[in-house]
Amino acid sequence: MHLERIINVRENIKDTVVKTPLLYSNIFSEMCKNNVYMKCENLQLTGAYKLRGALNKIISLNEVEKSRGVICSSAGNHAQGVAYASLLASVNATIVMPETTPYLKVESTKNYGGNVILHGKCYDDAFMKAKSLEEEEKRVFIHPFDDMDVIYGQGTIALEIFEDINDFDYLIAPIGGGGLISGLSLAAKELNPNIKIIGVQAEGAPSMALSIKNNKICTLDSVNTLADGISVKTPGNRTFEIVKDYVDEIITVSESEIVEAFLLLAEKHKLLAEASGVVTLAALNKLNVQDKKVCCIISGGNIDMLTISSLINNGLVSKGRLLCFSVELKNVPGELLKISEILAKENANVVKLEHNQFKAINRIHNVLLEVTVETNGHEHIQNILSAFKQNDYQINVMY
Amino acid sequence: MHLERIINVRENIKDTVVKTPLLYSNIFSEMCKNNVYMKCENLQLTGAYKLRGALNKIISLNEVEKSRGVICSSAGNHAQGVAYASLLASVNATIVMPETTPYLKVESTKNYGGNVILHGKCYDDAFMKAKSLEEEEKRVFIHPFDDMDVIYGQGTIALEIFEDINDFDYLIAPIGGGGLISGLSLAAKELNPNIKIIGVQAEGAPSMALSIKNNKICTLDSVNTLADGISVKTPGNRTFEIVKDYVDEIITVSESEIVEAFLLLAEKHKLLAEASGVVTLAALNKLNVQDKKVCCIISGGNIDMLTISSLINNGLVSKGRLLCFSVELKNVPGELLKISEILAKENANVVKLEHNQFKAINRIHNVLLEVTVETNGHEHIQNILSAFKQNDYQINVMY
Repeated sequence: MHLERIINVRENIKDTVVKTPLLYSNIFSEMCKNNVYMKCENLQLTGAYKLRGALNKIISLNEVEKSRGVICSSAGNHAQGVAYASLLASVNATIVMPETTPYLKVESTKNYGGNVILHGKCYDDAFMKAKSLEEEEKRVFIHPFDDMDVIYGQGTIALEIFEDINDFDYLIAPIGGGGLISGLSLAAKELNPNIKIIGVQAEGAPSMALSIKNNKICTLDSVNTLADGISVKTPGNRTFEIVKDYVDEIITVSESEIVEAFLLLAEKHKLLAEASGVVTLAALNKLNVQDKKVCCIISGGNIDMLTISSLINNGLVSKGRLLCFSVELKNVPGELLKISEILAKENANVVKLEHNQFKAINRIHNVLLEVTVETNGHEHIQNILSAFKQNDYQINVMY
Repeated sequence: MHLERIINVRENIKDTVVKTPLLYSNIFSEMCKNNVYMKCENLQLTGAYKLRGALNKIISLNEVEKSRGVICSSAGNHAQGVAYASLLASVNATIVMPETTPYLKVESTKNYGGNVILHGKCYDDAFMKAKSLEEEEKRVFIHPFDDMDVIYGQGTIALEIFEDINDFDYLIAPIGGGGLISGLSLAAKELNPNIKIIGVQAEGAPSMALSIKNNKICTLDSVNTLADGISVKTPGNRTFEIVKDYVDEIITVSESEIVEAFLLLAEKHKLLAEASGVVTLAALNKLNVQDKKVCCIISGGNIDMLTISSLINNGLVSKGRLLCFSVELKNVPGELLKISEILAKENANVVKLEHNQFKAINRIHNVLLEVTVETNGHEHIQNILSAFKQNDYQINVMY
């Protein structure tokens, strides 16, 4: 019965949304000894799956509702999804975003034609403002996840997956509020009751995992994860019920696991995704099965370029691909040469070097040299450190 | 006649190579007022189209040749293509790479099972070494572009494109040695004689453009471009003849145009490509046609993570999305507050800030503040600079 609805939704939105590629990953397959495919919703219009649900909700409105316009609150992908869906459906949209929303996210929502109202210091303030405008202006509030029209919209992803490959053993999706995985589960379990549905949350925002464990909706006091797209304090009422009935397991992943998955996806598959988009890949090592056919949803790719730079650097450090250290040198000629010789011998490619007389503890005799080198794993780093030790240099590893 | 050969090649390699996605780009379409699709060979196995030609060459060898093994010289995608193709075909492969090849490229070629020999300071040294080993060990030399089996392999891309969409007006491909565009042209012009084929070179390495202009093969004294994949001093003999007969126009693009295309592709489409992979997108603004159906080949994505970081920063600066400036402050309390107020008022998000007493010219009275802020284009930058001017601060824009 849900499936039939979702099939109808797909008919209504399929000329507008992109049927995103389902790509085989040799890298992640080898890593976890399963056959891993990636459903690339980061390549969706607006850069995330959110467009599907928002578009379905908006085209499902009656003419009176459409003429009054819609409203939502979001600092992320839902804002862009609602703005773009409204543009496509010629419906007026107001999007309330926290004042702290990065300028460029505000701009891109405006570029899709949304009236942006900046209000309050956090999401909850923006939400309250949107609810009051819903009342005042009689606009239709578009919930980011706890709405069956939105959930059915997200469920169309499962239909696309089954169209390409219909014998997956596992379907893995991120859980924030639970809208995406609810839609997927309703469609997929009806298409194949044996398919396992796995949800993934960040360790710093495990609201659904906690709620399922306690068998009641729980609200987290605080959330702390770089995966802002799934950083949700309270699951939805509808989504909680669906997840309870349909989702087989919820896995949580750490921040460093997320960063490593981001880096692997970028480096090996040339695909950029936001942190919440790669949690499914990060969860693969915790799946504890082999030789299964697994589909990971890459839910979105809206990450700003500066964050990418810093994730790359973080990821390289945690994988032993970048080493930054300082070493105190005697303030005499020839010391830099010795250091350079050791680095060259150990095949350590210098990325950055700062020679600073002011930073050392003893400014009269010593200078502090800060060196960042490209390395090829933790073993390589150990070799470099040993080489310095053998030459009587004191190394302080900075990161 | 070429087409028939290429169709055969496709049959032979299609179970091994990935049929890469052909994605519509709303962003580049709007930018150049055409309908732009991207053929994503950056999503090919080994991260580049080179696998196609190398694989076809290797499986075309007879058993005696296969048993002797193959050899090539390359510091880039051809090395990985030959190594991986050899692994798939169970053929022994030696790859000669310049000693200066980044450690990680060497590692990834080794990981595909290639015997890597590091030799010489540049590509030409490695090439000479490979040719002498071809002689000594009776290995088959696999040329990166000037070989009909390699060219036919690359031509299979055109078949995949036509399978998805068969009425393109323009096909745009990068030109280094000319292997890719030769294969594409031979297939595409036979499938549709009216299709226009456009080649793209970097301004710093226009060897084919120059050769076509002079109607004879020319060798550049030096090449200088960040698009190392198409940084070739001399076109091939076969490829020169094919380009002369089949390619309608060659466009050259600047380094900054390449960086901007890289950034747009990453930011808007979540796809990473190497510099030589995005020259086709960079050329779109120079196409001087409208409302045409255009296919750009994104030829590869093998770019290291640190280069991505620096391209992102460069690209953001050139698009006015990042501003770095220094300002001399009086060494009294409250000055930092004034600066912070101006920045907040002008909506400039601080990325980096260094307050350094040692760098200013007059160390007694002043401190030098270096600020990097996120901005929203050149107009925003002008507003920020005006605001400082109105408050009597002397700003020195660093980049």
